[in-house]
Amino acid sequence: MSNADQYLIQEQPYYRPTADEVALFEAAYAARMPVMLKGPTGCGKTRFVEYMAWKLKRPLITVACNEDMTASDLVGRFLLDASGTRWQDGPLTLAARIGAICYLDEVVEARQDTTVVIHPLTDHRRTLPLDKKGELVHAHPDFQLVISYNPGYQNLLKDLKQSTKQRFGALDFSYPETAVEVDVVSHETGIDPKIAEKLVQIAHRARNLKGHGLDEGISTRLLVYAGHLIAKGIAPRAACMMTLVRPLTDDPDMRDTLDAAVATFF
Amino acid sequence: MSNADQYLIQEQPYYRPTADEVALFEAAYAARMPVMLKGPTGCGKTRFVEYMAWKLKRPLITVACNEDMTASDLVGRFLLDASGTRWQDGPLTLAARIGAICYLDEVVEARQDTTVVIHPLTDHRRTLPLDKKGELVHAHPDFQLVISYNPGYQNLLKDLKQSTKQRFGALDFSYPETAVEVDVVSHETGIDPKIAEKLVQIAHRARNLKGHGLDEGISTRLLVYAGHLIAKGIAPRAACMMTLVRPLTDDPDMRDTLDAAVATFF
Amino acid sequence: MSNADQYLIQEQPYYRPTADEVALFEAAYAARMPVMLKGPTGCGKTRFVEYMAWKLKRPLITVACNEDMTASDLVGRFLLDASGTRWQDGPLTLAARIGAICYLDEVVEARQDTTVVIHPLTDHRRTLPLDKKGELVHAHPDFQLVISYNPGYQNLLKDLKQSTKQRFGALDFSYPETAVEVDVVSHETGIDPKIAEKLVQIAHRARNLKGHGLDEGISTRLLVYAGHLIAKGIAPRAACMMTLVRPLTDDPDMRDTLDAAVATFF
Amino acid sequence: MSNADQYLIQEQPYYRPTADEVALFEAAYAARMPVMLKGPTGCGKTRFVEYMAWKLKRPLITVACNEDMTASDLVGRFLLDASGTRWQDGPLTLAARIGAICYLDEVVEARQDTTVVIHPLTDHRRTLPLDKKGELVHAHPDFQLVISYNPGYQNLLKDLKQSTKQRFGALDFSYPETAVEVDVVSHETGIDPKIAEKLVQIAHRARNLKGHGLDEGISTRLLVYAGHLIAKGIAPRAACMMTLVRPLTDDPDMRDTLDAAVATFF
Amino acid sequence: MSNADQYLIQEQPYYRPTADEVALFEAAYAARMPVMLKGPTGCGKTRFVEYMAWKLKRPLITVACNEDMTASDLVGRFLLDASGTRWQDGPLTLAARIGAICYLDEVVEARQDTTVVIHPLTDHRRTLPLDKKGELVHAHPDFQLVISYNPGYQNLLKDLKQSTKQRFGALDFSYPETAVEVDVVSHETGIDPKIAEKLVQIAHRARNLKGHGLDEGISTRLLVYAGHLIAKGIAPRAACMMTLVRPLTDDPDMRDTLDAAVATFF
Amino acid sequence: MSNADQYLIQEQPYYRPTADEVALFEAAYAARMPVMLKGPTGCGKTRFVEYMAWKLKRPLITVACNEDMTASDLVGRFLLDASGTRWQDGPLTLAARIGAICYLDEVVEARQDTTVVIHPLTDHRRTLPLDKKGELVHAHPDFQLVISYNPGYQNLLKDLKQSTKQRFGALDFSYPETAVEVDVVSHETGIDPKIAEKLVQIAHRARNLKGHGLDEGISTRLLVYAGHLIAKGIAPRAACMMTLVRPLTDDPDMRDTLDAAVATFF
Repeated sequence: MSNADQYLIQEQPYYRPTADEVALFEAAYAARMPVMLKGPTGCGKTRFVEYMAWKLKRPLITVACNEDMTASDLVGRFLLDASGTRWQDGPLTLAARIGAICYLDEVVEARQDTTVVIHPLTDHRRTLPLDKKGELVHAHPDFQLVISYNPGYQNLLKDLKQSTKQRFGALDFSYPETAVEVDVVSHETGIDPKIAEKLVQIAHRARNLKGHGLDEGISTRLLVYAGHLIAKGIAPRAACMMTLVRPLTDDPDMRDTLDAAVATFF
Repeated sequence: MSNADQYLIQEQPYYRPTADEVALFEAAYAARMPVMLKGPTGCGKTRFVEYMAWKLKRPLITVACNEDMTASDLVGRFLLDASGTRWQDGPLTLAARIGAICYLDEVVEARQDTTVVIHPLTDHRRTLPLDKKGELVHAHPDFQLVISYNPGYQNLLKDLKQSTKQRFGALDFSYPETAVEVDVVSHETGIDPKIAEKLVQIAHRARNLKGHGLDEGISTRLLVYAGHLIAKGIAPRAACMMTLVRPLTDDPDMRDTLDAAVATFF
Repeated sequence: MSNADQYLIQEQPYYRPTADEVALFEAAYAARMPVMLKGPTGCGKTRFVEYMAWKLKRPLITVACNEDMTASDLVGRFLLDASGTRWQDGPLTLAARIGAICYLDEVVEARQDTTVVIHPLTDHRRTLPLDKKGELVHAHPDFQLVISYNPGYQNLLKDLKQSTKQRFGALDFSYPETAVEVDVVSHETGIDPKIAEKLVQIAHRARNLKGHGLDEGISTRLLVYAGHLIAKGIAPRAACMMTLVRPLTDDPDMRDTLDAAVATFF
Repeated sequence: MSNADQYLIQEQPYYRPTADEVALFEAAYAARMPVMLKGPTGCGKTRFVEYMAWKLKRPLITVACNEDMTASDLVGRFLLDASGTRWQDGPLTLAARIGAICYLDEVVEARQDTTVVIHPLTDHRRTLPLDKKGELVHAHPDFQLVISYNPGYQNLLKDLKQSTKQRFGALDFSYPETAVEVDVVSHETGIDPKIAEKLVQIAHRARNLKGHGLDEGISTRLLVYAGHLIAKGIAPRAACMMTLVRPLTDDPDMRDTLDAAVATFF
Repeated sequence: MSNADQYLIQEQPYYRPTADEVALFEAAYAARMPVMLKGPTGCGKTRFVEYMAWKLKRPLITVACNEDMTASDLVGRFLLDASGTRWQDGPLTLAARIGAICYLDEVVEARQDTTVVIHPLTDHRRTLPLDKKGELVHAHPDFQLVISYNPGYQNLLKDLKQSTKQRFGALDFSYPETAVEVDVVSHETGIDPKIAEKLVQIAHRARNLKGHGLDEGISTRLLVYAGHLIAKGIAPRAACMMTLVRPLTDDPDMRDTLDAAVATFF
Repeated sequence: MSNADQYLIQEQPYYRPTADEVALFEAAYAARMPVMLKGPTGCGKTRFVEYMAWKLKRPLITVACNEDMTASDLVGRFLLDASGTRWQDGPLTLAARIGAICYLDEVVEARQDTTVVIHPLTDHRRTLPLDKKGELVHAHPDFQLVISYNPGYQNLLKDLKQSTKQRFGALDFSYPETAVEVDVVSHETGIDPKIAEKLVQIAHRARNLKGHGLDEGISTRLLVYAGHLIAKGIAPRAACMMTLVRPLTDDPDMRDTLDAAVATFF
């Protein structure tokens, strides 16, 4: 079980619930229902799954999906050894064996073979066929699959198939409410809550521009970045430009609009 | 035969026939005719083939097809060993050797080499040439090939060729009738049949929206998910939103429409 | 010669000639002229080449071509062995060495390197250069190359080049005449010729719909499938729906049209 | 030199010159100028280069180019051996070492890396760098490069670059004149010259249709095929349909036109 | 630590700050915030990160990204050894282990798997999962990630995803002001500042043409090239044509315009 | 140093300077500035770099770039050996180590990873990171990089990036002036200068057709080819058709135009 231990979350992650998502996830886990976390970048999906893994005392194995990832990257492959080939479990197989929560981050980025390989793990079979090894892995009773999904990226070329989607219960995530977000920013960076609130106000303005020149709003993560720089003594306006404006856009007009929003508060 | 044993279905799968599909499949199996199961996602095709394998007392080898799967993934390949290369049968070859039912799930996802490789197994020859090994496998007399196919996904780029289609007898599948589906949901989750019927009613409304904003209707599987959450004590409305609405659509209007349908019943 | 023996057709295949194709093929074989068999799916091209191989007493090596097949799959490759690499002949090289008839099924599916690799085997040189092995194989005097080709699939992307086509004599194939086809269906399935004739009549109706909603007509193979089910006791109408209609089309209107055609006879 | 010997043409190939191409090629070879043979399929380019290799008493190494051929297929590669890797010369390197004529057939089919790899062999350097081996091969004084090229295939995607074309002297080839072609057909098949002339007349009619429904005219090779079948006792009309019409076209109208042309003569 | 030593910048790089970028970078490094350097080619981004690595006394590992770079090129791979496979860290893994600054130059050129692989290193986790090795690397406390990004290249096909961008603080870079740039050019080449100023004036004219026929303005690097040639005794006009005009454009009109600009000064 | 010796140009290449390109190249080499040679095919770029390598007494390593060339082809790779893997330097690495001039011919053909890999060698760093080997090669003080580039091929898909272009000084090349070209042709082939002048006149006519039906003019190389054939006793008109007209164009009208131009002189 030492293998599982290294994937246990040791300390309680800082997570502020925004609704009934903890209870829903617990019920889903009790039924071992696969869960999909939907929402924009940087709003806390990864933090939430870490919190739930800690709360449920299950190991957590995270895989950042990408379009060059193959099914073998998830399931495992043969390695060449001094005495021939040796099988090495991939992260999904390992999770199924030790009863971990397996978190496939941004699963829509993966190629279809990656998404299809999870099908037999996500219905009543709860099995993972290792075709290349000729083994049928029966998932550990504690195993659960969780995926994240950003609907804002959805396009015709890259979308989960219905036959994949309909294997998951889904939870919507969004940016936290003002009071919660102010709390998060000041808690993580040590800055004064009043300054944190100004940062959140700037974020609100930018989030309203989503779809009107911005692809995505300012995430809570960037607010924490701004707070860190301010805590190191950087002037708030320079800190905001570096962390809230420059990363978001290359368009000069939009950059000026956001700089002006910063100047309103600092 | 121990290899075959691990693929035998031990317990009778729960399957509610909807028409004469069991008799037709038995006759097709008696003629060793390859069979194609057509129908939408989550309507019970996989469950049906498990049931038939159990009823016919044949091992079942299932392969989830995907667009990156090569013919070698089905047929087998040489592995490097301490003493050189060693041939390892793929799942299709194994099935042909031991007389299993080989079930290629969503075969239309596979690349053409995968679909062409099954041709000599699906006519009077019933052979599988392992070109790389220089062996001609004659299928076991009990071997049968079954594929699934979702016509809703059919498009110009991905469709089975006529020369493949005309090697199969085909059975249409759809969602079960109301009484049957209510029975399935309450049987699998333990919830009250009256609640199960409400879930089925919600599904009927969503299925009418297929082609009018929804790519696919709510599957029986999702109804079972909803039932599981309700059985764990989650409020029915929250359970339905998590399992019947959020997985299905990212469109805000469609989501509101489905949420309203849920609210009509709970 | 034991290697050649395994590819000999042991029993006379059931083949009903439709015209002078047997004499033409014999003359072509006498001149060792490469032959191209043209015609729709399931009309008997594969059966014909098996019959001719049996009649000419030559081994038959069949390769189902596909778009992922490489020249190496045909010609051969080096395998890793305990003592280094070892060359393994591919099916084309094997056929050229032992004097077999090599049948490349649906050659137009293969990539161009597959079709170009056959060029020196199909002119006066009758050689196959194994560039990777540094060997020039001179074909056995009995070797002949046969390919099949379905003009109905012809499109701009996938067509044989003139420099390939002009290396073959070509024979047109089509569905057999009514009497012959009735004979074939009742002979292969044991059903009453009167029922077999009804099945052939249904096929005629569907074949007239080719190009008017159907990509391809009902093949003789599917009629045999229908006959098998009827022989097993399935009601003719259900048997026809499963074998003649459902495999052919996913279009609801076309399906109803074909079901109606079935209902006219059964 | 035994390696070179296997590539020597033992017997004089049957070749009928059509103009001053033999003298021009001899002068080009004397200057070791690379030569490009241009012309339609089946008009005798391959036969010509065999004849010249025989006349010049040089070994001939032929490579059928294709779009999947890599530079390594021409130049060579490392193979795994019992004692590690071992270099194996490709056909181009072998030709450069032993002073052969290297004939790249349909070079335009090859990928650009294949065509660029010949550049240093085709200017004053006459070298071939084996980058992977770290060796610079200086071509044998007798080495010459010859390529074939069918302008009829020329399109925007596949054409030789000017920087490649301008490394070659070029000879145009076409179908032989009537008397020569009649001579060739009767000489190669043993049929009566009067019948051979009828076949050539049919070819002339078809060649006039090039660009008006036919991609390419009937080649001399197909006329020889027809002659072979007639010599085996097949009726001329059936022989012509199998060898001159069916290989050329899948279009029903064009097929009828050509059949009618055949019927005019036989 | 000797491994780290070879990546230490031994001598102070010549860098002229243009604003508060040094202080901002120091604060970002103090918070271990990932930093993105934005700006046109040749304006000093690489020099800046070398200067900061020298100032912070951290090893610097630079990776020039390109579209064929895989995640394995960054993270590491198994190499075959006398006794089987041996893992070799890639540059990103090495940097994470020894606490270096890892600089991914022109990261937007890399494939998505490269950019996604850095995600867990750029949030609170600061980990790098080596899935193929089954190891979870915790970044050294001194590790920092820096990327460069040229917004001028931004297009629909190649752009960083928001979920990547929002993991970085960003600093804008541009060409230095006149006095600074004159200083840089004369300092690096030894030419008279008056001549250096003329070169800078020429650059200003060309930079105004960006977007009006030029894709990019003349970089400081090219001015240094011109200075080098002049210092070697080449006439300034010829030096400018070779270093400031010919590399920039192939368009004859634009070339004449730039040549005329040169002629105004020399 | 014996490795370097094999790349030394032993005899003075025949090169006729056309302007101040020798002095400019010497100054660029003195500053170790990377140099780009721009100009049409066959105008002497390769000959020039050979001449400069001879004059500067530096080894010359030439690489013919192509679109399938990978960074590993330039930089090096691990080879499998009896005792495991062994690193083999690629030509670029070898040149950097021994202080050669590395000439990348037609660099624009290479994939982007090839062009990006040269970046750290072409700025103040003069290093080449061998990421796969974990070595940072510092270029030998004598090392210089030279690339060739044909602007006539420039298109949207294949062009050097500004961040690559701005790392080079650039020299324009074109066909030599009449007197020089006549001199070159008669010197290399031994034909009478009056005949050589006629060949050059023909070339002038064809070069005026560039962009009006010809992609590229007749190169000096082809004129030398024509001279060679004439020196072997071929009639000038036939020699010109084979070397100046047929290689250049497949268009019948353009061919007639060029044949007529030839007929004007011979």
